[in-house]
Amino acid sequence: MIAFQVEARDGAARAGLLTTPHGLVETPIFMPVGTQGTVKAVGPDDLRAIGARIVLGNTYHLLLRPGHELVKRRGGLHRFMAWDRAILTDSGGFQLFSLAERRKLSEEGVEFRSHLDGSSQKLTPERSIEIQEALGSDVAMAFDECPPADAPRAYLEESLARTARWARRCRAAWHPDGPSALFGIVQGAMDEGLRRRSVEEICALDLPGYALGGYSVGETPAEMHAGVAFSAPLLPEDRPRYLMGVGSPDDLLHAVAAGVDMMDCVLPTRCARNGLLFTSRGRLVIRNRVHAEDDGPPDPACGCYTCRTFSRAYLRHLFQAKELLAYRLNSIHNLAYFLSLMAGARRAIREGAFVAYAREARAGWEQDEEETG
Amino acid sequence: MIAFQVEARDGAARAGLLTTPHGLVETPIFMPVGTQGTVKAVGPDDLRAIGARIVLGNTYHLLLRPGHELVKRRGGLHRFMAWDRAILTDSGGFQLFSLAERRKLSEEGVEFRSHLDGSSQKLTPERSIEIQEALGSDVAMAFDECPPADAPRAYLEESLARTARWARRCRAAWHPDGPSALFGIVQGAMDEGLRRRSVEEICALDLPGYALGGYSVGETPAEMHAGVAFSAPLLPEDRPRYLMGVGSPDDLLHAVAAGVDMMDCVLPTRCARNGLLFTSRGRLVIRNRVHAEDDGPPDPACGCYTCRTFSRAYLRHLFQAKELLAYRLNSIHNLAYFLSLMAGARRAIREGAFVAYAREARAGWEQDEEETG
Repeated sequence: MIAFQVEARDGAARAGLLTTPHGLVETPIFMPVGTQGTVKAVGPDDLRAIGARIVLGNTYHLLLRPGHELVKRRGGLHRFMAWDRAILTDSGGFQLFSLAERRKLSEEGVEFRSHLDGSSQKLTPERSIEIQEALGSDVAMAFDECPPADAPRAYLEESLARTARWARRCRAAWHPDGPSALFGIVQGAMDEGLRRRSVEEICALDLPGYALGGYSVGETPAEMHAGVAFSAPLLPEDRPRYLMGVGSPDDLLHAVAAGVDMMDCVLPTRCARNGLLFTSRGRLVIRNRVHAEDDGPPDPACGCYTCRTFSRAYLRHLFQAKELLAYRLNSIHNLAYFLSLMAGARRAIREGAFVAYAREARAGWEQDEEETG
Repeated sequence: MIAFQVEARDGAARAGLLTTPHGLVETPIFMPVGTQGTVKAVGPDDLRAIGARIVLGNTYHLLLRPGHELVKRRGGLHRFMAWDRAILTDSGGFQLFSLAERRKLSEEGVEFRSHLDGSSQKLTPERSIEIQEALGSDVAMAFDECPPADAPRAYLEESLARTARWARRCRAAWHPDGPSALFGIVQGAMDEGLRRRSVEEICALDLPGYALGGYSVGETPAEMHAGVAFSAPLLPEDRPRYLMGVGSPDDLLHAVAAGVDMMDCVLPTRCARNGLLFTSRGRLVIRNRVHAEDDGPPDPACGCYTCRTFSRAYLRHLFQAKELLAYRLNSIHNLAYFLSLMAGARRAIREGAFVAYAREARAGWEQDEEETG
């Protein structure tokens, strides 16, 4: 199981220490997403080298392929993917509403067809917990519904009540002495009243940690930042706070300022595969001709393998030539940047200098920002 | 420039030491192919880890993208691709006859259209050498024509004479005090008379090394093995002998037995990306269901990162899920296997035990060979 300790505060921002059965995680932390049992394009050796301490796995994907029972027979997800540091798994809820076909929602759970082979599947709160415990994740997430940001008020109320009932069923199905710490998920879209109600219902379950779901689902960044700034401080001070599926470097700084401890997003790896690099001097579009003869690293302030070893000119060539190495090297850098941004935030919080840190980071991005359109 | 020393002989097989400006190469050696300035799917860190000492670059591809002048301005190919060990470049001849469009052959050279953008291009013996010296390769290859195995006799004779004239022009264009040692290429298809004539013409140029071209271009493996067994011993004893574009593990053992020192082929990396793994127990088709729950490594006798770290079950999952990591891990293993097969051959030659080594390696492949069709 896990333990969590807030070590320093700077305004609402927190520096904490999360202890898991698979090692320590210093917070605030960005968690690379390893949907199908691998963070796309990088190996566990690369993740270690950039100092990743915790990665995500996706219940929905692993259930469908290769199957959680198969992973369990392999000794669990850590062993299967050769990752001996921490793993957090989502509950499958979010993917159900974005990927699955012919979805049928009921009080019991969700029936759906696999997007891979059309096979008939079912996820319930109990089954989601069973799967996550079978995977052996260090942090399991409650099974929730994540409605779109613009859903009608009546539907949001109905969904919120169901998510609370499902959270109670997750709590009942969960084995506190098992491999996984259960985190509850607060929903409520952009409505402060609903968010407050959800916090009350979910936090009443006295779980090891809590997450903010339902952000980055169609609202504007400003709405999201305001929503997180409102919601995060409502969560218990002594438990880790996880903002799900967020976001850009700017979003991360907003979240940390609001008191969020953990974040995840596919953005750094997905953008890397599209040739978009995040740097201390702004976003860099590697295919741009300006990089063709640039012998400098993607980010002169970065110490990752990519920046230590390769030039922009070479990375541009690899990307233009569609060489597989491009995706790995770009992904290593983007993940390293997200992790180092959070490591810097942690240091700043401990020194009481987070506001200045965030201001300087944002000023840095103005220097060389390229058009990404 | 290079130096070469035969350290031990076992029958016709040789163990040698090739000294290059970028380090020592123990022979016999398999050279991974880095067509576009990267060995596909792996990084220089991976190549170092498996003990690669020399890789190939392709003049044709690098000329078209990113351009040899650009690479030269970056400090040469070693620096561009962050590979400080040896590099051999081909002359572009072979690719011209397999990839280029609207090819026009004359005594002067070959005019063609780029397969990338249709642009008009020209390669001549002089230009091929200029490009390879601009890239800074440790071993440059003469510009030759490689006719198909079934070309008519009259065409083979005409082509062979032109290849000899081109080789003399390459020799004249080459700077012996420059970065690259020039290797001549012997052609002659499956005809012993033509091969003998080509050896006489090419070896008269007194070059630092010689290659056998024109194999693995449509003939049967048995024809190729017989041809190499005939041709290799005709080459000077005191120069490195390079068999171009060959081949499978069995082909490599045949070539070493004939006295070949250096080999290259896309087979291990291409097969890796198709899920075919070469092991000490035979070929393994990773998508096969039999591997779905196999916790063993691809090859229990292999010490590469892939075999030390991951199970067949995991590699099968990655491949089925089309995860990019699959291509890297499979490529690391296949290259490690090819390199270790040659390292073992070298040890055996030094101990006078190459015949037994080759017999045992072949017997090993019988154990678990899978259908690859």
